[in-house]
Amino acid sequence: MTSEPIRLGVAGLGRAFMLMLPTFRNDPRVRLVAAAAPREESRRAFEAEFGGRGHATVEGLAADPEVEAIYIATPHQMHADHVTAAAQGGKHILVDKPLAVTLEDADRMVEAADKAGVHLIVGPSHSFDAPVALAHELIKSGEFGSVRMVQALNYTDFLYRPRRPEELRTEEGGGVLFSQGVHQIDIVRLLCGGLARQVTAMTGAWDPTRPTEGAYSALMNFENGAFATLTYSGYAHFDSDTWMGNVAELGGEKPPEDYGKARRALVGLDAEAETKLKTTRTYGSGAEPPAARHHEHFGPIIVLCDRADLRLTPDGVEIFGDTERRFVEAPLGAVPRKTVIDALTAAVREDVPPPQTGRWGRASLEVCHAILRSADNGAAVDLSRQCGTTEKEEHA
Amino acid sequence: MTSEPIRLGVAGLGRAFMLMLPTFRNDPRVRLVAAAAPREESRRAFEAEFGGRGHATVEGLAADPEVEAIYIATPHQMHADHVTAAAQGGKHILVDKPLAVTLEDADRMVEAADKAGVHLIVGPSHSFDAPVALAHELIKSGEFGSVRMVQALNYTDFLYRPRRPEELRTEEGGGVLFSQGVHQIDIVRLLCGGLARQVTAMTGAWDPTRPTEGAYSALMNFENGAFATLTYSGYAHFDSDTWMGNVAELGGEKPPEDYGKARRALVGLDAEAETKLKTTRTYGSGAEPPAARHHEHFGPIIVLCDRADLRLTPDGVEIFGDTERRFVEAPLGAVPRKTVIDALTAAVREDVPPPQTGRWGRASLEVCHAILRSADNGAAVDLSRQCGTTEKEEHA
Ligand SMILES: NC(=O)c1ccc[n+]([C@@H]2O[C@H](COP(=O)([O-])OP(=O)(O)OC[C@H]3O[C@@H](n4cnc5c(N)ncnc54)[C@H](O)[C@@H]3O)[C@@H](O)[C@H]2O)c1
Ligand SMILES: NC(=O)c1ccc[n+]([C@@H]2O[C@H](COP(=O)([O-])OP(=O)(O)OC[C@H]3O[C@@H](n4cnc5c(N)ncnc54)[C@H](O)[C@@H]3O)[C@@H](O)[C@H]2O)c1
Repeated sequence: MTSEPIRLGVAGLGRAFMLMLPTFRNDPRVRLVAAAAPREESRRAFEAEFGGRGHATVEGLAADPEVEAIYIATPHQMHADHVTAAAQGGKHILVDKPLAVTLEDADRMVEAADKAGVHLIVGPSHSFDAPVALAHELIKSGEFGSVRMVQALNYTDFLYRPRRPEELRTEEGGGVLFSQGVHQIDIVRLLCGGLARQVTAMTGAWDPTRPTEGAYSALMNFENGAFATLTYSGYAHFDSDTWMGNVAELGGEKPPEDYGKARRALVGLDAEAETKLKTTRTYGSGAEPPAARHHEHFGPIIVLCDRADLRLTPDGVEIFGDTERRFVEAPLGAVPRKTVIDALTAAVREDVPPPQTGRWGRASLEVCHAILRSADNGAAVDLSRQCGTTEKEEHA
Repeated sequence: MTSEPIRLGVAGLGRAFMLMLPTFRNDPRVRLVAAAAPREESRRAFEAEFGGRGHATVEGLAADPEVEAIYIATPHQMHADHVTAAAQGGKHILVDKPLAVTLEDADRMVEAADKAGVHLIVGPSHSFDAPVALAHELIKSGEFGSVRMVQALNYTDFLYRPRRPEELRTEEGGGVLFSQGVHQIDIVRLLCGGLARQVTAMTGAWDPTRPTEGAYSALMNFENGAFATLTYSGYAHFDSDTWMGNVAELGGEKPPEDYGKARRALVGLDAEAETKLKTTRTYGSGAEPPAARHHEHFGPIIVLCDRADLRLTPDGVEIFGDTERRFVEAPLGAVPRKTVIDALTAAVREDVPPPQTGRWGRASLEVCHAILRSADNGAAVDLSRQCGTTEKEEHA
């Protein structure tokens, strides 16, 4: 164990990296020492800001002896190759969600990390949000008895944010399941112990101009007897952040005049112009991540336990007990996404992995596919690759 | 067609009748002319207030030549006998929800009404709430395209309101499905066209001191392609009325100090004392129904359509369109539950039935049973006795 900052390399300097910037810039437990990015401009910006080394390829980054761990924030479909490269280079890995698009890729990644003896963490996902972690702690305390029923819902403008073309093609990981559903699944699995058994679901792809799943509803149960409903719409009409105190996903305030903004911004854009618009939100573009006075969140979540319901808010957890209600705050630290760096540090420096390992990410990905399959064939889908909240608990 | 008030008889002067009192007292289109009640005291109170005739039995009421139509507000399990008696007496019928407990009873009731040539309306249920009716109108207008996904949820203290013993025994119609689920099912079916196809559900009976279903989650789809999730908890912890502007089910304001009140009121009561407590809320006890400044509601409901989401509120419908949001008010008339009397008048005076006929009520009851069955055997349950929003549309 050492208090030296983790020497981190970054693969992919796009939107996801942007969202991690406030963390990387301010958490003294990590130091960015290298990056891989195909675009010269982002590499230069990175070198200028962090003084680290810019690589043209992830393979180059993986071979960089200065690097201890790599944060992989490239498009979903590249995660498998990039994780494998990083593992082969002997680096610990933080790969952004979803772990991968296919379960075959997921297997390959878990194996590569095992073989190399490196930690593979899937995150950030909203299961790292401090109120989720707090709820998980409260549940584990046993004070409220068993978790019985969880309800998670989220109505956003996801489908109308600017996209790369493959983000609108389901086979390539497009649509709400792989990018958004996986957050909700991660959270619900964490609160219900991880070991999902069966899922029945319906999905909708209702906008022919963006022909991928924009919404779903799923009902799933768990080995411990809990069950959950998960509902998501990315069609940009009702906004469930109104039930989260008008706090946006990233923890900032939501100006009412932004209504309809996502759709408006796309009017008249072809696929190329849209991809370009997405790039204006990435690193090196001059854009800055939004300031937040609350925690990030993923929509309303109610956890029904024997002796209380827990409601997650952007500031903590509201506890509705038999006779009293009270609020437990999740303090907002100076640095956002602290829990992600907690997990990375514990894994790299103390060999203690978080719940969100490669196997965990594979289990959440299995649920994404199960939702698509159930929606397709109208039947319940049995799950067989689930894992619990600690590495030991794997599905029988 | 005549503008004479409908001469109404009432069977059962309990809690449900109490809730109809403001309507019966103030809507000039109905006049209470008789009642049946086993308790002398309620009969006297009725005669004193309305000047009508008190009968000791429903059979007596059904034979009363003064009576044109009967509102049946006796316990669920008696609805079948009482509806049959009323039909045999040639009276039109408004029977409170649920139509019955068993589908066999439901069949018998539909048949009896058909044979007698009388109208059988199941209500009031929350599908009569003015905002629900307004949403139904807005959907039928076609302005927003097809209904694609509906989410209905409700977290209440239902299980801890004072109960008769059989209200806590599922086989006798106890638990949240028959008394509460049927409201949610009625609403969702109305908004989705009525013809449900399949339901997958899970239920929970988690309080051993009140051993009947207190919660459920269900996923169902419809012939027209729409699907819906329905979630209900009667366990008195989180209260979803906070997402309805703190307006209670009956349209009144909800004082925050009432938190935990239902559970508190039951502490130390045995079954007999509890039944007695329930009676203190019925007609003739001196209790008065609550005043309401909003419409009644049954919890948050979001209807996702192609070009807008509709959110039902206690005052109307909020429309979230592609570029704009607006609110359509459902005006609060002088008399509550006006829509119920609209339906009764149209049926009795103009021979035009509402969507909520006996067949409709049977279809909603079928869904209650399907939820219990699916929860029991873990599989999706096919529905075969559905009906559409007009008498013509029956399930193929
Ligand atoms: N956790 C979150 O909050 C969050 C938010 C957004 C995205 N994500 C995830 O991050 C990943 C990236 O999504 P995004 O929205 O940032 O996309 P993006 O297109 O904005 O960024 C991807 C970046 O990867 C770069 N890239 C492409 N090929 C590369 C290669 N071979 N080597 C190195 N870099 C390469 C691109 O130039 C681009 O800058 C996705 O898996 C997504 O699910 C997570
Ligand atoms: N729509 C609503 O808002 C609403 C609200 C409450 C109840 N209900 C429904 O109303 C029905 C009654 O429930 P409740 O809560 O009012 O119960 P309750 O016990 O308060 O009332 C039932 C009444 O029926 C009377 N009764 C019993 N046997 C009778 C008989 N043979 N003839 C005449 N009267 C008889 C009882 O004396 C009692 O007064 C149930 O089906 C329930 O689902 C509807």
